[in-house]
Amino acid sequence: MRAGYVRTALRHVHLYQSKNLAKDGLKLQSTQDLLQSLGFVKQTQSGLVHWLPLGLRTLNKIKAIIRNRMEANGKAQEVSLSLLSPKALWENTGRWNNGELFKLRDSKESDYCLAPTCEEEITSLMGSYISSYKDLPLTVYQIGRKYRDEKRPRGGLLRGREFLMKDAYSFDQTEQDAIKTFENMNNTYDLIFKDLRVPFVSAWADSGAIGGDLSKEYHFVHQSGEDTVLECDGCHQVSNVEKCHSYPQETNTYVGDVSVRYALNTARDTLICLYYPSNRTLNWNLVLAAMERDVDSSLADASNEKVLQLFHADKSEDDLMFSSVVRVMDCRLSSKSKFPDFPLTQYLKSNFSQLDDVSLVDAEEGEICGACEEGTLKGSKSIEVGHTFFLGQKYSKLLNAKFTTKDNTEQVCEMGCYGIGVSRLVAAIAQVTRDEMGLRWPRSVAPFQISLCAAKSDELLEEVASSLQTWNSDTWINQDAKANLGRKIATSHSLGIPVCVIVGKKQWPFVKLEVRAPYMTDKWRASQSQHRDAWGWECDDSAETGTVSEPVQKHTVHKDHLKDVVGVILTDM
Amino acid sequence: MRAGYVRTALRHVHLYQSKNLAKDGLKLQSTQDLLQSLGFVKQTQSGLVHWLPLGLRTLNKIKAIIRNRMEANGKAQEVSLSLLSPKALWENTGRWNNGELFKLRDSKESDYCLAPTCEEEITSLMGSYISSYKDLPLTVYQIGRKYRDEKRPRGGLLRGREFLMKDAYSFDQTEQDAIKTFENMNNTYDLIFKDLRVPFVSAWADSGAIGGDLSKEYHFVHQSGEDTVLECDGCHQVSNVEKCHSYPQETNTYVGDVSVRYALNTARDTLICLYYPSNRTLNWNLVLAAMERDVDSSLADASNEKVLQLFHADKSEDDLMFSSVVRVMDCRLSSKSKFPDFPLTQYLKSNFSQLDDVSLVDAEEGEICGACEEGTLKGSKSIEVGHTFFLGQKYSKLLNAKFTTKDNTEQVCEMGCYGIGVSRLVAAIAQVTRDEMGLRWPRSVAPFQISLCAAKSDELLEEVASSLQTWNSDTWINQDAKANLGRKIATSHSLGIPVCVIVGKKQWPFVKLEVRAPYMTDKWRASQSQHRDAWGWECDDSAETGTVSEPVQKHTVHKDHLKDVVGVILTDM
Repeated sequence: MRAGYVRTALRHVHLYQSKNLAKDGLKLQSTQDLLQSLGFVKQTQSGLVHWLPLGLRTLNKIKAIIRNRMEANGKAQEVSLSLLSPKALWENTGRWNNGELFKLRDSKESDYCLAPTCEEEITSLMGSYISSYKDLPLTVYQIGRKYRDEKRPRGGLLRGREFLMKDAYSFDQTEQDAIKTFENMNNTYDLIFKDLRVPFVSAWADSGAIGGDLSKEYHFVHQSGEDTVLECDGCHQVSNVEKCHSYPQETNTYVGDVSVRYALNTARDTLICLYYPSNRTLNWNLVLAAMERDVDSSLADASNEKVLQLFHADKSEDDLMFSSVVRVMDCRLSSKSKFPDFPLTQYLKSNFSQLDDVSLVDAEEGEICGACEEGTLKGSKSIEVGHTFFLGQKYSKLLNAKFTTKDNTEQVCEMGCYGIGVSRLVAAIAQVTRDEMGLRWPRSVAPFQISLCAAKSDELLEEVASSLQTWNSDTWINQDAKANLGRKIATSHSLGIPVCVIVGKKQWPFVKLEVRAPYMTDKWRASQSQHRDAWGWECDDSAETGTVSEPVQKHTVHKDHLKDVVGVILTDM
Repeated sequence: MRAGYVRTALRHVHLYQSKNLAKDGLKLQSTQDLLQSLGFVKQTQSGLVHWLPLGLRTLNKIKAIIRNRMEANGKAQEVSLSLLSPKALWENTGRWNNGELFKLRDSKESDYCLAPTCEEEITSLMGSYISSYKDLPLTVYQIGRKYRDEKRPRGGLLRGREFLMKDAYSFDQTEQDAIKTFENMNNTYDLIFKDLRVPFVSAWADSGAIGGDLSKEYHFVHQSGEDTVLECDGCHQVSNVEKCHSYPQETNTYVGDVSVRYALNTARDTLICLYYPSNRTLNWNLVLAAMERDVDSSLADASNEKVLQLFHADKSEDDLMFSSVVRVMDCRLSSKSKFPDFPLTQYLKSNFSQLDDVSLVDAEEGEICGACEEGTLKGSKSIEVGHTFFLGQKYSKLLNAKFTTKDNTEQVCEMGCYGIGVSRLVAAIAQVTRDEMGLRWPRSVAPFQISLCAAKSDELLEEVASSLQTWNSDTWINQDAKANLGRKIATSHSLGIPVCVIVGKKQWPFVKLEVRAPYMTDKWRASQSQHRDAWGWECDDSAETGTVSEPVQKHTVHKDHLKDVVGVILTDM
């Protein structure tokens, strides 16, 4: 056999598979268990996995797709940073006390964390190299392991404690340039997810702890997801819950209990009282928008008592009486709503102001879209797989990443950061594409594009293998001596290999093909009509729709045209 | 320009280079400093580096060479293990108390180390999958980061605290099979180092703490190395000092102080007294060989007092008198040597035996080779870059990696392990190939094969770039706006890029080439004679030898044949 090393090296793939694969009830297994019993990964500890040969192949295909787009479209250059990041950097940005950092101390008593993300390191590194406006714009990225001491790891891959991330960081001269870079990176993400060939949505998002104003999330919509995205049926804007702005179908109709949350303006001389229905969740982004950003965000997590205490501070009773108070009423509240007591005992009505027509709480399915004010919001469960942020000067200021402008003044860089959960993608793609037979990878990330099954290794298998030479490094021959032909085919299908080629004496010189992957287009149909007779290419009727709704679609073809047919089919995937 | 993304993404390579590269006195810099000032890596902490775009390209080329050979010749399949390895595994093999482990504790109070090597993890992992003799032989490998809390890190790369390793592990049915696998892996290593195109030696070695009997080291011979290898000028066997067996030019001529070291046989009923010149180092491998392995190795680090105490143990004076004593004399000792006092006060001469003609100490340059007993040993300083071990059952026994034999009995796997220091190789290759102008990579691992230099980006550069399309992803165009043509050429040479193509109006339609990499063969000379007129290919006379001893060799060629000439030259590298 010329077809070489893949077969040699992967002779043992079956070793990692559960011995009772067929009996294991694949359809009942969680996707994480499926990936484990099929031999893609092995979970060693909660949130930690070893990557086995099959899993590593899929992981590497995802890495290659991301790498290609990051360089060709994202104009980013690859670096690879040390995982051990010194305490001082993290103290600089106030993130050392994050409870999810894995920390360690070396023999010289220096403290490090295992990097969970690299804003600190990269800003400090690039700050040491960037000197002039001529050095900008500049984007760097890396694909490497990251660590987070998750309290509740989910599966080994979806929310792991050790995971593979693509993280990119951009540096620009001005906010305007940085937003352009942010937009270009979002376009690059669209291309990456299109290359992965899994349907996705991008949603405007709250930027959470990383900060900055603009932020987009990339999700696979799926009922198993832990996230929720809301889509407007009018303007079709998709947002995550934290970012979504909505109005109730009818305002001022709520009659239940009212919660209040106190806040201060940035000057800390005005008390802001935020009233909203107790059965809803206050949304800080909407609070900021309602108050035109004049809110002290550092108190976002402070208790009401703490805020009142700060408001009272050194003020005398008199001062207090003359202080301003703003009451902000969620538009759902009505006069029949049950309000809590007001916290100040003495006050002047003339210092009071009130905001009414605003929405302060997380959006809910069925409400009116706040963006177009017409459509209705529809909610979907989803799995987050990527996130982009415009960071502004948050890190560059703290870590001194500056450049000299054209007119020779010093300025702080404007940054963005962009993540994709690479190992998470393996689990997420498996999850949204699998069916009751097992995994069903899109061609782009399948560990192999083709599997070759025969009852035993003989000359026919030999001949077919060399006719498929073109896909040599992507063809797997099942060499499990303990498996019969039926078992081999079943394994190929449960592994989710797109095309299974079945060789046997009985139908020779015809070869059978079973197609497992979904088609993205159906050009193969025209080709099949055209070449049916010349190539001896028959196809079962069950698959009439162009996309395979059946889990497996069956073909036969004359051996001399196997290569042509496989080529045609793969092109559509 | 069609030539695409490499140019876009690497527009900023010059950013990472020292601003005063030419003035920096490259020849005076250590190789680690050179790699840093040229922008390959940035050291962040002692023994920790960030990989910059150029360094990462070289690193990735080395990885690709290793990966290819490991699969094609080593028949190994790639896996990728978690870096966080739980305490229990390491306690199992008695390696948890190694002072060089980086340790950390998670929020659930579980202890982990950052894996410095993976015998524990891989043996436990593969033990869970291997069940039958049909699953063997089996070799797995990975290329990933490893950690060691080195007390004295050397440079960022040569001995780092975080480093990239290729580590492979083999599992076999019998010792004989395992030794065959060990030999095949050594052949694979020979191919890897040949592909790297840097002269190397392989030396029989002591297996040190990892254990096992057979062990080979791979070294680059270089005066800067920290290791020493000894080569026999007769039989040409190369060994490291610990493994080398030698005899003095004249035996029994030593007249100085004699040291003694006590040991016990495996039954612990015979006292072994090892006498050797005090100015030499006792070699445990030679002791084992002299005693035909009947020595209790667990006492190798025990003090003389401890050994005597164990020997006395519960023995009565009478027992002791009848115990055996073996005196082993290094063949360098003479009757005039100054021996220490004998440790036993009462003994029977009849229980004494003595071994004379043996060598017990580390070999030294100038002595006679113990292998052929004819040649003389020559010592060379060297840098170790790879190591192979036959491990036997050391780990598989402790971690229960067993299989069922053909006749249905249970047996412990025979193992081997095989390491290459991948990040260390970058520094080692740089070190042994550099000269006073800077780096001088072999083509195999140069970050780019070709650099294109022109005073500015114009149509001529455009035309030349597209004629070199074949090497697009391996061609770098220096786009440093601040550098003139001379500076660009100098940078290309200091970066060690094999072929520098210089485009300018003055000599057009001829193009200049400066060749920096060493040739491995000189077939290009015949080609040059043959095509001199047709291709307009001239070459300077300074390079007469076939291998470039000059740091740079100059060519001119007509633009229409640039591609041919570049092809011819690169093939020889």
